[in-house]
Amino acid sequence: MTLLFSDDDVAAALDAPLTVDAMRNALLAAYQGRLIAPPRASASLGGGRMVLTAGHLTGEWYGFRSYDTFGHRESGQLVVLHDAGTGAVRAIAVGEELGSRRTGGLGGVAVDALARPDAATLGVVGSGRQAWTQVWAAAAVRPLREVTVHSRSAANREAFAARVRAELGVPARAVGSATAAVTGRDLVVLATTSRTPVLDARDLAPGTHVNTVGFKQRHRAEFGADLLDAADVLVTDSPAQAAAYDPPMLAVLPPYAERLRDLGAVLAGAVPGRTGADQISVFCSTGLAGTEVFLLDRLARVGARTR
Amino acid sequence: MTLLFSDDDVAAALDAPLTVDAMRNALLAAYQGRLIAPPRASASLGGGRMVLTAGHLTGEWYGFRSYDTFGHRESGQLVVLHDAGTGAVRAIAVGEELGSRRTGGLGGVAVDALARPDAATLGVVGSGRQAWTQVWAAAAVRPLREVTVHSRSAANREAFAARVRAELGVPARAVGSATAAVTGRDLVVLATTSRTPVLDARDLAPGTHVNTVGFKQRHRAEFGADLLDAADVLVTDSPAQAAAYDPPMLAVLPPYAERLRDLGAVLAGAVPGRTGADQISVFCSTGLAGTEVFLLDRLARVGARTR
Repeated sequence: MTLLFSDDDVAAALDAPLTVDAMRNALLAAYQGRLIAPPRASASLGGGRMVLTAGHLTGEWYGFRSYDTFGHRESGQLVVLHDAGTGAVRAIAVGEELGSRRTGGLGGVAVDALARPDAATLGVVGSGRQAWTQVWAAAAVRPLREVTVHSRSAANREAFAARVRAELGVPARAVGSATAAVTGRDLVVLATTSRTPVLDARDLAPGTHVNTVGFKQRHRAEFGADLLDAADVLVTDSPAQAAAYDPPMLAVLPPYAERLRDLGAVLAGAVPGRTGADQISVFCSTGLAGTEVFLLDRLARVGARTR
Repeated sequence: MTLLFSDDDVAAALDAPLTVDAMRNALLAAYQGRLIAPPRASASLGGGRMVLTAGHLTGEWYGFRSYDTFGHRESGQLVVLHDAGTGAVRAIAVGEELGSRRTGGLGGVAVDALARPDAATLGVVGSGRQAWTQVWAAAAVRPLREVTVHSRSAANREAFAARVRAELGVPARAVGSATAAVTGRDLVVLATTSRTPVLDARDLAPGTHVNTVGFKQRHRAEFGADLLDAADVLVTDSPAQAAAYDPPMLAVLPPYAERLRDLGAVLAGAVPGRTGADQISVFCSTGLAGTEVFLLDRLARVGARTR
C-alpha cells in the first residue's frame, strides 16, 4: 500500500524538532557515505525541464524528488520513497511543504551546530515559505527571544511577524529595512528571491550566525563577497553540489573555497565549527540531494503510526 | 486534488479499446510534433539507477514515468501527470499495469494499422505481463478465432491459454514449441525475456504481421536478422528511440534502417503500411516516451467520472 501525503498531511505530521533531527541524521549519513546523492538529472520538455534529484540510503530506501522549471503557480513537487529491499513504492508526497521543511531542517541543524549556544535574537530578510521554515526550525534549536523581519511587501512582513507570534509564541516585529532586521542580531536568515545583495555585512554584530537560502552565485546572489570576507566559519551542506553550481557559487571561488567546510563533517567532529563567541559563521544552504526522501522516510514511519 | 491509481484501479478503468484509441492519438500527436518526448534521464544510485522518461503534450499536460534498474521484485513504476496550465499534479499511477497496458495498446495500434483486415489467428511466444497485454489489445482490433501460446514453463503457458479463454472469450491452446505457436498464424507476438532468437522466420506464413516486444538489439534479441530479411514492411513506434538503443537495435542497422518506418507516419497516411495481402509486416516496439503519461491523462478523465 502506497501512502500519499498532501501538504496538509506533511504540515500535521512533521514538527520542527523531528525535522531537524532527521536532517542531522541525513547529513551524518551523507558524510559517512551511506547516503548516496548523485547530481540531478533532467529532461527538456520545450519551455521547461522535468528535473529529478535522487537519493539512496544503503540498505534502507531509495527514491527521488521531481520538480519542473515551467514556472507555473501550482507546479507540484513529488517526493517518492521506495523500499530498498523490495523496490515497492512506500510513500509519495505531493506539494511544497516537504521540500521547504527539509530546507528549514537543514538550516536548523546549521544553527544548532554553528550559532552561539546563547543565541536568542533572529533577524530574517524575506517572508516567503523558505523564510518561514528557517525561523520555524531555528526556534526548535535555540529559545528565541525576538524575531525581526523585513521583506519588500509591508503586508507580507506584517503577516510573517504575526505568524511567528501565533505559531511559535515568539515576540516578532516587522521592520522597514534589511538593516533594521539584522543589526545586532545573534542569528540572521537570508531567504529572498533577490539576485542582488540585500545585506551589508557591516551590519552584522560579532558572533552572529547567518543562514543563506536564496541565490548565492556569481552575479546572482542575495549577498555579496563582503559576507564571505566577514565569515570566520564558512559551511555548506553539500560541497559537491556547491561545486556543481553554474554560474559558480560565490563560496567555491577563491579565496573562499579552501575555507568552505562540510556541515556533515562538522557534525561528525571531523572539522571544527565555531571556536569563538565573536566569530561570524555563515551557512550556505544547497539543499543536499536525497534529504527530501530521507524526510519522507521519517514521515512515512510517523504517518504509518498515526493513521 | 491528486488522484492516485493502483494497478487494480488501472485494470478496472482502462479497457483495450480505450487504451488502443489513446495510443493511436498519442502516436499521431508525436508524429505531428505536439507530443514532446525527450531522451530518458537517469541518476546513478550505486547498484542501480533511477530513470525518468518525460513527455509534454503542448497546452495539455506534462509529466513523466520513473522506474529503477535495481531489479527488485516489487520495483514500482510511477507515472505522474501535471496540468500544463497550472502545473498541478493531477494524477499518479503506481505499479506495472499502466506501463504494460500502454505497450499493449501500442501493439494493438500496430496490428490494426499493419495486419491484414481478415487476420484472425494469433500465435504468441511468451506468457508474461507483456505477452498478455499484446493479445488483450490485438483482440480489440481483430476478431480473433484462435490463440496459440508457447513459453518455457508448461504451467505458465497453460495458465495464459486459460486466461485468454476466460477473459477474452477466445479459443486458446498452449503448445510445446515456438514453431508450433507461430506456424501459419495471421498474427505473431514475440514477448519474451530471451536474448537469443526464439523464432525461425521460415515458420511465418506469407501475409503474417509480427509484433516484437522483447530484446531487439545486436547480440541481444529474441529474433534474428532472418525476421527483418523476411519483412516487407518494417515499422517502429519511435525511430528516434530506436536509433538511441545501445547496443544498436537490429532494425536500425544497414540494410534495414532505410526501410524502417514510423508508425505515426503510417497512421497519418504520410508513408504506406501494408500494400499487399502476402506481405510480412514487422512492428518493433520501443515504447514511445510520453505515452504512459498520455494514457494516465485518459485514465484520469475516466477515473474522475467514475469515482
